[in-house]
Amino acid sequence: MHVGAFIEEMEQLAPPGLAEDFDAGKIGLVVEGKEEILRVYCALDATPFVVKQAVKASADMLVVHHTPLWTPVTVLRGKTASLMRALLSAEMNLYVMHTNFDHAKEGVNDALAELLSLSDVIPMSHGCIGTCTISLAEISKRLGGTIRLWGKIKKIRRLALVAGSGFNSDFIEEARFLGADAFLSAEMKHSVARSSPLPCLEVMHYALEAPAMRRLATRMGWQYIDDPPVQQIVP
Amino acid sequence: MHVGAFIEEMEQLAPPGLAEDFDAGKIGLVVEGKEEILRVYCALDATPFVVKQAVKASADMLVVHHTPLWTPVTVLRGKTASLMRALLSAEMNLYVMHTNFDHAKEGVNDALAELLSLSDVIPMSHGCIGTCTISLAEISKRLGGTIRLWGKIKKIRRLALVAGSGFNSDFIEEARFLGADAFLSAEMKHSVARSSPLPCLEVMHYALEAPAMRRLATRMGWQYIDDPPVQQIVP
Amino acid sequence: MHVGAFIEEMEQLAPPGLAEDFDAGKIGLVVEGKEEILRVYCALDATPFVVKQAVKASADMLVVHHTPLWTPVTVLRGKTASLMRALLSAEMNLYVMHTNFDHAKEGVNDALAELLSLSDVIPMSHGCIGTCTISLAEISKRLGGTIRLWGKIKKIRRLALVAGSGFNSDFIEEARFLGADAFLSAEMKHSVARSSPLPCLEVMHYALEAPAMRRLATRMGWQYIDDPPVQQIVP
Amino acid sequence: MHVGAFIEEMEQLAPPGLAEDFDAGKIGLVVEGKEEILRVYCALDATPFVVKQAVKASADMLVVHHTPLWTPVTVLRGKTASLMRALLSAEMNLYVMHTNFDHAKEGVNDALAELLSLSDVIPMSHGCIGTCTISLAEISKRLGGTIRLWGKIKKIRRLALVAGSGFNSDFIEEARFLGADAFLSAEMKHSVARSSPLPCLEVMHYALEAPAMRRLATRMGWQYIDDPPVQQIVP
Amino acid sequence: MHVGAFIEEMEQLAPPGLAEDFDAGKIGLVVEGKEEILRVYCALDATPFVVKQAVKASADMLVVHHTPLWTPVTVLRGKTASLMRALLSAEMNLYVMHTNFDHAKEGVNDALAELLSLSDVIPMSHGCIGTCTISLAEISKRLGGTIRLWGKIKKIRRLALVAGSGFNSDFIEEARFLGADAFLSAEMKHSVARSSPLPCLEVMHYALEAPAMRRLATRMGWQYIDDPPVQQIVP
Amino acid sequence: MHVGAFIEEMEQLAPPGLAEDFDAGKIGLVVEGKEEILRVYCALDATPFVVKQAVKASADMLVVHHTPLWTPVTVLRGKTASLMRALLSAEMNLYVMHTNFDHAKEGVNDALAELLSLSDVIPMSHGCIGTCTISLAEISKRLGGTIRLWGKIKKIRRLALVAGSGFNSDFIEEARFLGADAFLSAEMKHSVARSSPLPCLEVMHYALEAPAMRRLATRMGWQYIDDPPVQQIVP
Repeated sequence: MHVGAFIEEMEQLAPPGLAEDFDAGKIGLVVEGKEEILRVYCALDATPFVVKQAVKASADMLVVHHTPLWTPVTVLRGKTASLMRALLSAEMNLYVMHTNFDHAKEGVNDALAELLSLSDVIPMSHGCIGTCTISLAEISKRLGGTIRLWGKIKKIRRLALVAGSGFNSDFIEEARFLGADAFLSAEMKHSVARSSPLPCLEVMHYALEAPAMRRLATRMGWQYIDDPPVQQIVP
Repeated sequence: MHVGAFIEEMEQLAPPGLAEDFDAGKIGLVVEGKEEILRVYCALDATPFVVKQAVKASADMLVVHHTPLWTPVTVLRGKTASLMRALLSAEMNLYVMHTNFDHAKEGVNDALAELLSLSDVIPMSHGCIGTCTISLAEISKRLGGTIRLWGKIKKIRRLALVAGSGFNSDFIEEARFLGADAFLSAEMKHSVARSSPLPCLEVMHYALEAPAMRRLATRMGWQYIDDPPVQQIVP
Repeated sequence: MHVGAFIEEMEQLAPPGLAEDFDAGKIGLVVEGKEEILRVYCALDATPFVVKQAVKASADMLVVHHTPLWTPVTVLRGKTASLMRALLSAEMNLYVMHTNFDHAKEGVNDALAELLSLSDVIPMSHGCIGTCTISLAEISKRLGGTIRLWGKIKKIRRLALVAGSGFNSDFIEEARFLGADAFLSAEMKHSVARSSPLPCLEVMHYALEAPAMRRLATRMGWQYIDDPPVQQIVP
Repeated sequence: MHVGAFIEEMEQLAPPGLAEDFDAGKIGLVVEGKEEILRVYCALDATPFVVKQAVKASADMLVVHHTPLWTPVTVLRGKTASLMRALLSAEMNLYVMHTNFDHAKEGVNDALAELLSLSDVIPMSHGCIGTCTISLAEISKRLGGTIRLWGKIKKIRRLALVAGSGFNSDFIEEARFLGADAFLSAEMKHSVARSSPLPCLEVMHYALEAPAMRRLATRMGWQYIDDPPVQQIVP
Repeated sequence: MHVGAFIEEMEQLAPPGLAEDFDAGKIGLVVEGKEEILRVYCALDATPFVVKQAVKASADMLVVHHTPLWTPVTVLRGKTASLMRALLSAEMNLYVMHTNFDHAKEGVNDALAELLSLSDVIPMSHGCIGTCTISLAEISKRLGGTIRLWGKIKKIRRLALVAGSGFNSDFIEEARFLGADAFLSAEMKHSVARSSPLPCLEVMHYALEAPAMRRLATRMGWQYIDDPPVQQIVP
Repeated sequence: MHVGAFIEEMEQLAPPGLAEDFDAGKIGLVVEGKEEILRVYCALDATPFVVKQAVKASADMLVVHHTPLWTPVTVLRGKTASLMRALLSAEMNLYVMHTNFDHAKEGVNDALAELLSLSDVIPMSHGCIGTCTISLAEISKRLGGTIRLWGKIKKIRRLALVAGSGFNSDFIEEARFLGADAFLSAEMKHSVARSSPLPCLEVMHYALEAPAMRRLATRMGWQYIDDPPVQQIVP
C-alpha cells in the first residue's frame, strides 16, 4: 500500500479534526520513510526498544499514540538523535494518532470502556461514563496493574473514565454531575485529589491507553509491540 | 503575640525572598484575622476538616503549606465561600509558607532528608541528595505510605529527593549528574518516567511535605492537625 | 424564595449576556450565603456602611451595581477581609449587576433618561440620546448634586447621556453624529474635554447610577440603602 | 540659539531620564522646525488656539506639557492634520516636557507646592507633601477654579499633592502613611473616592499644571499663552 | 470633484476590504488636504522628488502605492517632517492604495501580467500564473531593468509572478503546484533561493509595481511621476 | 579528536556568547554523530549537495554557517527528512557557527574585509568600515559575482560592509555617521534603498559569507565544499 493511501485510511479511523489544538503539527506522518507500506507495527510510545524491534522486523511503518517530537526541536542530539537515526536509516515511517484517536469512535476511551465491560456508555467532553459490574480487583487485573484508590468507595455502579492524564477538576465535576460514582484515570495531583467530589481510581497511564493500540493492531492485522514502564509497589 | 511580630518570626524561618516567582502574592498572611496570636495550629492544607478543628480549638492562627486561594478569585462561592466563612467568622488568621519553606534551611526538603536519615546531604536547585542507608521498605514505613517504584533498582546509595511535585526531567538529570542512584518525589508523569535516567520512587505528595509541617509544629510548640488524603492500593 | 429562583429572576432583568467582556466572572452571585431569600436590600456599592445596614436589617440578599472584588484576589486582608467577614458571617448573599444592567431595558441608562424626563429617546452603543426640556438647574436638582459644565452651552435640545464613567471621545463623537447638543456623564478627563466637539455636563458617578438601583428597589419591593460619597464645592 | 543648544538646555531642566516609561518616544522635539530659535512660546497644551497665537507671534519654538501626538499615527487627517499643518508650515518647533518635568526639580509639582505656599515639603513617589497654612477658599483662588471636595475635612495641616491625574489609591495610601491630612489632584474616579483614607481636593487638571509652565516662561523670558478649558459650576 | 467623491471612486478601483491585515490604518486618505480635487498626480512612492514635482504642478491629490507613514509616529522630525511639511503646506491630499490594489482586478499584478503579454492567466493566493511567449531578454526590456536569474532555466512556458516582495517559499510552492516553470518577483532571500523548486527571476521592486500606477494614471487622465531607484550592474 | 574537544576548539574561534539572541538553541552541535572526529568538511550551507559530498568523503564532521533546522520542527518530512537521514545514517556531526562567527575576531566580516584588502578597519555594531583602494570591478571579481549598485557613486574611499543580509536603515545610518562612502551587503529591500543616505553595493549573500568559511577551512586543514547558488544576469 502506498503511504498516501495508508494515511487516508488512518484519517478515517482517527480524523485529525478531532485533535485538541495543542496537537497541531504533532500528529499524522511525523517521520517520513519509504513510500511502500507492507509491514506495519504498532505501540503506545516510540521508545528505543519499540523502534529497535520494529527495525529488526523490517517494519515499513510504526503507528504510535505519543509523538517522540513533542517539544519542537532545532537540534538532534542525544536520545533524539539516536531515535531519529534508527527510524530514518531504516526508512521507516512513523505515524502518530493522539487526541484525535482519544476522541475517535472505537478510539482510546472506547477501547478502555470495552475492556472494562462498561454498559450504557455515554460520552463526556473527555472520556465516558458507563455501568460497571466488575470488582476493583477485576479492574486492576484487566488493566494489568495496581490501582491507587483515592477517597472512600462504597459501590461503583457508574464509572467515569478518561484515558491518559485526565484528573482534571472540571472533568471530575462533569462526571459527578452526570451521575458517576467513581473516576478512573492516570497521574493524580494532590490538589485535584483534595477537592475531588468523587473517589478516584488511579492507574498507570500506559495501562489506560495501551489497550486501544493493541486492539487497533489486532483489528488491522498489524503487530503490537508491548513495552510497559517497569513499575512495582513497595511494600 | 501581635500578628506583626508573628509574621516577622515566620519570615525569619521561611524568608519570602526564597519563594518561586509563581508564589508572588500567594504566601504570607493570606487571611487576616484577630491581632493577638495566642494559639497556633498547623497543617499541610487548609482543608475543611483542618479549619473546623482549628476553629473548634479556638486557634488564632493557622499555618499551612498550600494556600486555599491559589487561583485568584472575583467571587466567593461554594467550597471557597464555606472555607472563608469559617476562617473569617472565627477571626482566625491564615499564614502560608510555600516554596519559601521548601527552599529554607530546616525547611520541607531538609525535614524530609532528616526523616529518611540521609547523610552527606548536598543541595540541588530543588531538593537535595544524600547517602541513604535504609531499605525501601523502611522508607515506605517512615513516609507512612506505599511507594510506586518506576524502573529497576539495584541498590540506592545516594538518594535524590524533591518534596512535592518534583518529577521534572531537568531535576532528574541534575540528580543523575550529581551521582544519585534514585529519585524520590510525588506525582509522576508518563513522559517523565519514560525518559528518566534514574529509577524513581513515587509517594504521595502529602507524605513528602507533612513531615516538615509536623516538625515545625513540634519545634514551635504549636499543634499539628493531621489530615492525609485517604489512599489505598488495590489489590 | 430559593436563591436559584432569585438569580433566574435577576437574569431576566439584566441578562448576563449583555455585559461587557471585562465583567466576565465579576457579575451575578459574587458572595454566596444562605439559600432562602426573604429580605432583599439594594445599593449602588457594597460599602462598609451599606453592608452594616443590611446585616443589621437581617437581609438575606444584597444587590449592588459595583462588585467589591473587582481586582482578582489571592488574599483577604484589611478592608476586603472586613467586608467579606461581615457578609459571610451573616450568610448574606451578594448579587452584582453591572454593565449588563447598564445595557438592559429599564436599566441604568433608561432610569436616568426617565429621571430627566427625556423624550424621543434613541439608544447609542453606550447610553442614549433624548429630547430634554428641563433646565440645567433642574437637571442638577434631580440628580442631587452640582454639575461641572465643560465648554459653552447655548441651548440643550437633544441631550446624550452615558451613566457611569462615559466620557470617551468615541462616545461623544457618536453623540454629536446623532445630533446631540450636549453630553452628560461622570469622570471627565482633561484630554477628552480638550477635544470634545460637544459641551459636557459632568456630575458624580453616584448621581448617574443610583437612580436605577433606587427605582429597581421600589419596583421589586426591596429596601434601598443610600450612601452617596460626601462631596461639596468650594467656594 | 541653535535648536540643538536649546534642546540641551531643556534637558538640563527636565532630564528625559526622569520620564515614565509610557512617555518613551513622546517627549523632546516632537515637531521639527527651523534651526535658529529666537522667539519661544509656552503653553500647557498645543491647542489650535495656542498654535495659532504662536504662529501669529512668529514663534520659532513652542514648549508644551502634553504632546498632541500621544497615540502613534499612520495618517494625518482632521484636527491632527490642521494642527500639524499650522506648525510645519510656520516651521515652528514643538518641544514637549511631560513626566520628566513633573518629576524635575523646580518642575510641575514643585511649582504647585510653591503656588500654595507649602513649607517643609517632602517628596513622594509622585508629587509631594507640605505644610499648608492657607484656607480651602484661598487654595481655590490661587488655582483659579472651584474645588470639588470629597470626604469630610477638619483641618488640613499637611497637604499632599500630585499635579495632573493623580488620584491613584497607591499614591493616596502613600500620602496617608507619610502623614498627609488631605490629597489634592485632578480627575477623581468613583472607586478611588470610595476607598480613599483621606479627604480629597479635586480641581481641574489645567489648574494644577499650568502654574509650572507659566513660571517656566517667566523664568526663561518666554511668552506664556493661557488657554484654560472653559468650565463652570451649576448651580 | 469633492475629496469624498474621489475616495469613493478609488474604493471602487481598489476596495479597502481586499487589503492585507497589516495594512490596517495605513491605506486610504493618509494625509488630508484641500476638499476640491482638480489635479491628480500619481507615483509609486511619495519620495521627496515626487512630492516636489506634484507641489510644483499644484496637484490637489497625489496617489501612491507605498505610504510614507508605515511605522506609526509620535514625532515629526527629519525627513518625515520635511515630507509632511511639503504636503501639508500645499494642502495636497495623499491617497494610498497598497495591498488592496495588488489584489484588485486590473490592479498591480494584472497590470504586470498584461505588460508581459501573459495569456491564460489564473490567479494565485498572491499574484498569478500565465503563459509566457516572450524571451527573458524581452521581459527584461519591458520591465526596464536587468534580471537576476536564480537557478537553471530551460524554457518558460508558464510564468508565475508576484509584484513587490513576493519571494516566499509558500508562494513558490503554490506556483510549482499550479504548473509554473519559473517565478518572477523582487527582493530574493538566500534561504528562499536555496530551497526554491523553481528557477526565479528577480527584478527591482519598482519595475514590478510602477507599471500598474502608470497604467492607472493613463486610464484616469492623471499625471504619472516616474522616480525609479538608480540602479546599475557592475561589471 | 573527541567531539567534545572539537566543540571546545570551535567555541574558542566563535564564542557562543557573541551570537544574537535569535540564534539561541540554533548553533553549536546541531546534529550529533560519532564521537571521534578525524575528517572535517566545511561549507556555507548544509545543502543536499554538500551533505552528499561530505558523506561520500566519509567526513565525521561538517561545519556550516547556516543551520538547516532554523524553524523548530515537530516532524521530519520531505527535504528535511532526506537531509537528516543522510547525516544521521552516516553518523556525521553537524556543527553550526552563525552570528557568533559573524561577530568573532577573524570571523565572517573580518574575512570579507581582508578579501577586499580594506585597511584602517574599524568595527560597527554589525560589520565594519575600512579604507578601500580597489575598484568596483575588482570588488566584483574578488567576490566572484556581479554587483547591483544602488544610488550614484563618485569615489569609495571608506567602504562599510555587513556580511549576510545587512541592508538595515540603522546600520547604514551608523555607517554614514562613521564616515563611510558606500555600504556593501546582500538582500536589498526597496524601502531601505529608497531612504539610504549612502550608495549601496548589493551582492549575493553567498559571496559575502563563503570567504570566511573557505578561509577557516584552509586555516584548520579542513576541506571546503563550494556550492554557490546558480545566478546570472539577464541581459
